[in-house]
Amino acid sequence: MLEGYVLRCLSCGATYKPDPWLMRCPSCKGLLEPKLNDVEVSWEDFRGRKFGVWRYRELLPRVRYQVTMGEGGTPLIELKSNLFVKFEGANPTGSFKDRGMSVAISVAKEIGVKSVICASTGNTAASMSAYAARAGLKSFIVLPKGKVAKGKLAQASLHGATVVEISGSFDEALEAVIEASGKELGLYPLNSFNPWRLEGQKTLAYEISDELGVPDWVILPVGNAGNISALWKGFKELKSLGLIDRLPRLVGVQARGASPIVRAFREGRMEFFERPETVATAIRIGKPVNWPKALLALEESNGIATDVSDQEILEAQMMLGRMGIGVEPASAAPYAAYLNLLGREIGEDERVVLIATGHALKDPDIIPTPRPIEASSVEEAVEEIRRVIGRG
Amino acid sequence: MLEGYVLRCLSCGATYKPDPWLMRCPSCKGLLEPKLNDVEVSWEDFRGRKFGVWRYRELLPRVRYQVTMGEGGTPLIELKSNLFVKFEGANPTGSFKDRGMSVAISVAKEIGVKSVICASTGNTAASMSAYAARAGLKSFIVLPKGKVAKGKLAQASLHGATVVEISGSFDEALEAVIEASGKELGLYPLNSFNPWRLEGQKTLAYEISDELGVPDWVILPVGNAGNISALWKGFKELKSLGLIDRLPRLVGVQARGASPIVRAFREGRMEFFERPETVATAIRIGKPVNWPKALLALEESNGIATDVSDQEILEAQMMLGRMGIGVEPASAAPYAAYLNLLGREIGEDERVVLIATGHALKDPDIIPTPRPIEASSVEEAVEEIRRVIGRG
Repeated sequence: MLEGYVLRCLSCGATYKPDPWLMRCPSCKGLLEPKLNDVEVSWEDFRGRKFGVWRYRELLPRVRYQVTMGEGGTPLIELKSNLFVKFEGANPTGSFKDRGMSVAISVAKEIGVKSVICASTGNTAASMSAYAARAGLKSFIVLPKGKVAKGKLAQASLHGATVVEISGSFDEALEAVIEASGKELGLYPLNSFNPWRLEGQKTLAYEISDELGVPDWVILPVGNAGNISALWKGFKELKSLGLIDRLPRLVGVQARGASPIVRAFREGRMEFFERPETVATAIRIGKPVNWPKALLALEESNGIATDVSDQEILEAQMMLGRMGIGVEPASAAPYAAYLNLLGREIGEDERVVLIATGHALKDPDIIPTPRPIEASSVEEAVEEIRRVIGRG
Repeated sequence: MLEGYVLRCLSCGATYKPDPWLMRCPSCKGLLEPKLNDVEVSWEDFRGRKFGVWRYRELLPRVRYQVTMGEGGTPLIELKSNLFVKFEGANPTGSFKDRGMSVAISVAKEIGVKSVICASTGNTAASMSAYAARAGLKSFIVLPKGKVAKGKLAQASLHGATVVEISGSFDEALEAVIEASGKELGLYPLNSFNPWRLEGQKTLAYEISDELGVPDWVILPVGNAGNISALWKGFKELKSLGLIDRLPRLVGVQARGASPIVRAFREGRMEFFERPETVATAIRIGKPVNWPKALLALEESNGIATDVSDQEILEAQMMLGRMGIGVEPASAAPYAAYLNLLGREIGEDERVVLIATGHALKDPDIIPTPRPIEASSVEEAVEEIRRVIGRG
């Protein structure tokens, strides 16, 4: 199934025969990256197929059975000339996580695991539990106690996940995932150190190139930094396959209160945020697992790491909403960053794609609902409507 | 823009030159249906285009500017051999309404309206306000007072709709829409008596035929009955264009507490439900506007109207969730009906498509969230997980 791949350690450069259970370099504990060898494809190979993750199956693990629900193939919406939004909220569970889960759970299914596990309160949990259900696997979600947001768990609950609440921090939840998972129990870990999730997520770069060509900039939110790593990997692969002839520059956006990667990018050394705080819960992460990959992607792409305030995020969310696009706060951060960078780092004539990672419905409580206009009769309602229209 | 169309009254048969402001037959007040004349297309004409509503643009109003956000092209998920779910929750605002709004608001934009209006508390309001925002139009939503569910309005609010709350019932809200709208004010009504919305919704039938061929049965929830009318119109058009050679049978499903069409189908006369009640809020409608079209579709397709209980709906929602598919309650009704009809009206070897109209995230509060397993340490969490896995 993983023929064509080699696992390479990003820290020490050692290479390994791919093994779905191998998550870290055995010698130095570095992050592992799957490398494709000896693959030849052309755009023509994909043409006849529906848009989506598995349209690019030659560049993914060769599984016998795809655990799929039509993930990917999301709308690329033109906001204005040269500005596009890739709307990942239109994925089956409402976020970009579905791309990675479709691939990683296909791998999990193929090697015969019985259960999957992750530490997450949000989009990862929703996506993992849905795809696990689709594959007929049990799923476990580990959470720090008292931080269980009922609404966020509705999806996980609907898809039958078992939720374990641990006294302690998110780090301890993650520790429990690492401790509990393993081959003996057939319990497969799906936090974003799992390299096969990122293989699915890289298809975001394929779709953008396929539909639009290579933009000058791609701007995306950075939490655990898996997506920026996967996106960059996708573009680099297309270039080395000869399917595109240049690379975009990346902008990684973090919320000011949870911006370790921005700080590391500026100051040259990583220091985690012990108490990350932001309204953009999907990127409220102080210790991003994939930070070395993210810094590498930013450096290699001649990119930028930048932060935005919570107020800028909420304003950008509202501005996107007023253009018809409903995203959760984290997904508005790229638009906020775009507005800051336009006319400075980003030229007016450059082509930009913003990645909107999750749907507005993921976090409806954050949206302020204004007081309605009241009317005591049909006539009064009609009058009020005419008055508002009259005001222009 | 509407060349190629004729408007035909479903009640008296009179035909009219298409006018976007004409919503009812001027002579008998009957529902109007746009008919395509003199169009010739083949599947080949659509082939090179991305899946979605506008892939079939030869069969839609010829607008200069498409108000689009990549609606349609939704996943067709195989549940088991011969059973598929068309997952409309993957539309931009999370429901099938986006298909119709994309087309109707393109029409509205083209004729130069400044504002749009509808009476709705749910998916229609969310979709209309998003597409109006995309088109740069003002939007108004009229609601019966005291029935404003805050969560349901989050999307409308994000997309900048003006909300008017009227003392009275939904019928009075609808009356206000009809009263207030008109050419003079440039205020375009978008409740489902607007025939151009249904032109967008018919693409559901096109996509199913395009991807799968013609199934034996299509099962869908029925509220205001616009969607079943549009679906049937879509299939009939394909047949008369020679693109398919047979028609499916339709099953219209209603919640028992809001099932006027089921009663009319069985007893031969329409009697509205004054106080419709069901957990499936998206189909909690007692006086379906499009009931004559729906009964015609059921009759012509040799179809079935059937009702399911709220308990069956919630069980079906949970069963779909356990297969990875997250839908709102109304969208689970077709699966509940399928389970009732299988082995009786529906044969085991017949091919069936269920229409899942809206996303689970539309109504997260309805999903029961079980109590999590508690653990006071990493070790205890690991132990608990192993215990659950051990239980099988």
